[in-house]
Amino acid sequence: MANDSKDTRPIKDQRVCIIGAGPSGTAQLRAFEAAEKNGAEIPELVCFEKQANWGGLWNYTWRTGLDEYGEPVHCSMYRYLWSNGPKECLEFADYSFEQHFGRAIPSYPPREVLHDYIMGRAENSGAKKFVRLQTAVRWVQYSPETKKFTVTVKNLPEDRIYSEEFDYVVVANGHFSTPNMPEFEGLSMFPGRVLHAHDFRDALEFKGKDVLLVGSSYSAEDIGTQCHKYGANSITFSYRTKLMGFDWPEGFEEKPLLKKTVGNVAHFSDGSTKKVDAIVLCTGYLHHFPFLPDDLRLKTHNRLYPPDIYKGVVWINNPKLMYLGMQDQYYTFNMFDAQAWYARDVILDRIKLPDRAAMKADSEAWVKREEACKTEEEKIDFQTEYVRDLLQATDYPPLDVDHVGELFKEWEHHKEEGILTYRNRCYPSTLTGTMSPQHHTLWMDALDDSLGAFLKAPEAAE
Amino acid sequence: MANDSKDTRPIKDQRVCIIGAGPSGTAQLRAFEAAEKNGAEIPELVCFEKQANWGGLWNYTWRTGLDEYGEPVHCSMYRYLWSNGPKECLEFADYSFEQHFGRAIPSYPPREVLHDYIMGRAENSGAKKFVRLQTAVRWVQYSPETKKFTVTVKNLPEDRIYSEEFDYVVVANGHFSTPNMPEFEGLSMFPGRVLHAHDFRDALEFKGKDVLLVGSSYSAEDIGTQCHKYGANSITFSYRTKLMGFDWPEGFEEKPLLKKTVGNVAHFSDGSTKKVDAIVLCTGYLHHFPFLPDDLRLKTHNRLYPPDIYKGVVWINNPKLMYLGMQDQYYTFNMFDAQAWYARDVILDRIKLPDRAAMKADSEAWVKREEACKTEEEKIDFQTEYVRDLLQATDYPPLDVDHVGELFKEWEHHKEEGILTYRNRCYPSTLTGTMSPQHHTLWMDALDDSLGAFLKAPEAAE
Repeated sequence: MANDSKDTRPIKDQRVCIIGAGPSGTAQLRAFEAAEKNGAEIPELVCFEKQANWGGLWNYTWRTGLDEYGEPVHCSMYRYLWSNGPKECLEFADYSFEQHFGRAIPSYPPREVLHDYIMGRAENSGAKKFVRLQTAVRWVQYSPETKKFTVTVKNLPEDRIYSEEFDYVVVANGHFSTPNMPEFEGLSMFPGRVLHAHDFRDALEFKGKDVLLVGSSYSAEDIGTQCHKYGANSITFSYRTKLMGFDWPEGFEEKPLLKKTVGNVAHFSDGSTKKVDAIVLCTGYLHHFPFLPDDLRLKTHNRLYPPDIYKGVVWINNPKLMYLGMQDQYYTFNMFDAQAWYARDVILDRIKLPDRAAMKADSEAWVKREEACKTEEEKIDFQTEYVRDLLQATDYPPLDVDHVGELFKEWEHHKEEGILTYRNRCYPSTLTGTMSPQHHTLWMDALDDSLGAFLKAPEAAE
Repeated sequence: MANDSKDTRPIKDQRVCIIGAGPSGTAQLRAFEAAEKNGAEIPELVCFEKQANWGGLWNYTWRTGLDEYGEPVHCSMYRYLWSNGPKECLEFADYSFEQHFGRAIPSYPPREVLHDYIMGRAENSGAKKFVRLQTAVRWVQYSPETKKFTVTVKNLPEDRIYSEEFDYVVVANGHFSTPNMPEFEGLSMFPGRVLHAHDFRDALEFKGKDVLLVGSSYSAEDIGTQCHKYGANSITFSYRTKLMGFDWPEGFEEKPLLKKTVGNVAHFSDGSTKKVDAIVLCTGYLHHFPFLPDDLRLKTHNRLYPPDIYKGVVWINNPKLMYLGMQDQYYTFNMFDAQAWYARDVILDRIKLPDRAAMKADSEAWVKREEACKTEEEKIDFQTEYVRDLLQATDYPPLDVDHVGELFKEWEHHKEEGILTYRNRCYPSTLTGTMSPQHHTLWMDALDDSLGAFLKAPEAAE
């Protein structure tokens, strides 16, 4: 049995370590809080967060590379970032946008507005007392003798390292913070800026410039359109496998894979060339857990069903370790919730795990299903099924995943119809049924991305 | 006695871990090799190096932030970097520039030329077999029971973590790779690039721009003059305590400390303002050892005599741990050599350490002497005395530190006489007595910093 090492002490004497206080880590805290409100005993919770505030990736900083304590900067966000999917697809089942803002708001909010919503639920909870901010996890070790994890952390402002023991560890540090940085011939002699999307902060830096974006996924499409919106002279995308295929307006161009640069000239695999001023590598992110030894460490590329974690959550090799949010994502915040509720119920012994062989077989079956998905629609359906499967195991409030799945498909079509206009679309909340209002300004004309500007009444906006 | 835990096993059965294969780490390997050539038994050596090649900071890369494995980029070098001190001050006592290049070369070589020299000695040795490249140190732990260190590392290309035991650890990972990044009000809304000197790579990115450099030490002075040389529109320095005081030509300006930015306007503490396009934080570096627990970890700012290490090398709290190159530096490569020879002789039991109280008293006396230094000349003399003290304890070949000290003072005066012209000066080797030749091109006109261009005969150069 996977639960052979199950602790027989009362749950309140057990300790759970949560690594990261972003959307996944706070979902875990919120899940335990919900159980406690319903009269359950919960374990002692300690959430370690490297940053000065909770909120994870949604905390913006001007910093790039390393932070003020020499730790890798977590933030991959940039100024003028607007949601690239409808907010109706990421709504928490237990906290609607209408509840948070007191009214319906448009479907594609900028970063600051989404941050306000996500953290609004957390702030309204009593969860902050469990979070040790500015505390970086250095190393995690499991002892089969004591059946405990030793977690070694650094209190950054105090410059002090210490260790504590835990019965469970929940890894919730995200996987969009460590850039995947391939090499291209000539970059060491390129006479301008070369950066990864992770370090992109302000499109105005590229005003009037010819910008090359290597990659054809979300980062490339969003940073490219961003730079165009804020005055770049031209945008060139370089794709490895296939064209993004949007109906690009004047000023955009798609090229096959970058082969090399010679001075400031980019050479592509079809033999064509282009003089560029800056190169942004939109080449994705790595799952990176520098604090985990090999026997606890998830190794995967970015995919819908990473192997070795049962239900996408439980580390099969040691079910006292959980991972949240390690999937490639259509679903985001509500999926993290579903996972956090599941992890909680494993810890509370409400969910009895099958033995390892059964967990492995289940996981492998899902991996095979994922690999059979060909189209975007099939992939959306796959993740819908995954979330549905999680939801039926816990008491997370009802979420109409069929409706959310439909919205994702509509969104895909809207993007295809107009990559610069899809953010002007409106969708209904799957919780309240309310149709979102039209924003007061078209996205291409909305240069101020502040919460204040976004929430202004239409007549007050310019 | 500090040596109470001294190992009685034969030296060849002992194991030494060296962290980093830059100038300090390779000096340590070279020191053992020199002993072995003279007939001594040496311990087993393992040198862990994160980068794909040895050479430390002197390996240039276009990468910034995190590398292809998600590890912090070590390189703080940039294109067009020339030595900012005479090469005669950093010459190895056992390997002259003339020996390496077959002739005398000018006093201020560019990075590639210095790299060639430093690594030339290493390449000529048999030391590379001890280096495990692309292997990042994750954690070091000392066990008082076994009297051994467990060093946990990650083989980056194999994505594999493993641990080994060692009798000694030599920490040689440098302290100019983790940026010190203060906060300034307004930076999160600055509409352009904000970076630390650590991430500066190519001055051409700033051609035609108004660049603000926050700081007044080596990085600021060098990156500022660099950007000027390659066409920046204006250079503004912001100092915290005192003016750099050079006789700046047209296009340069010194301002007191930056208070905040409002949009693209920098506000200084004297109330003056300046519109700028980019901000480079030349605010120094942190001593950063994310792989060391508190009982082994040096905590210091950048200074000539960090506390808690006897002779600037031996960790007083556990003399089986050594640090190389942790000082602020006038002396560089030959000082690392002197330290490496000293560390070697402690390990070979040729140097008998005094007890901890005596080591502590000695260290504190040096710290006091450092603190009494007021002028640049006094500081140069202080480090000369420190190196002399190390040299007399080992068989490192003779080095005329009085002469080196004089050259440092000349260099300081030459910089004061002309910050854009001091690199055209010539100095004699303290080893061979040969006066260095004049370079074929004045520094301000030498835009090509390649080894090929530098070593070209004068008549062949443009």
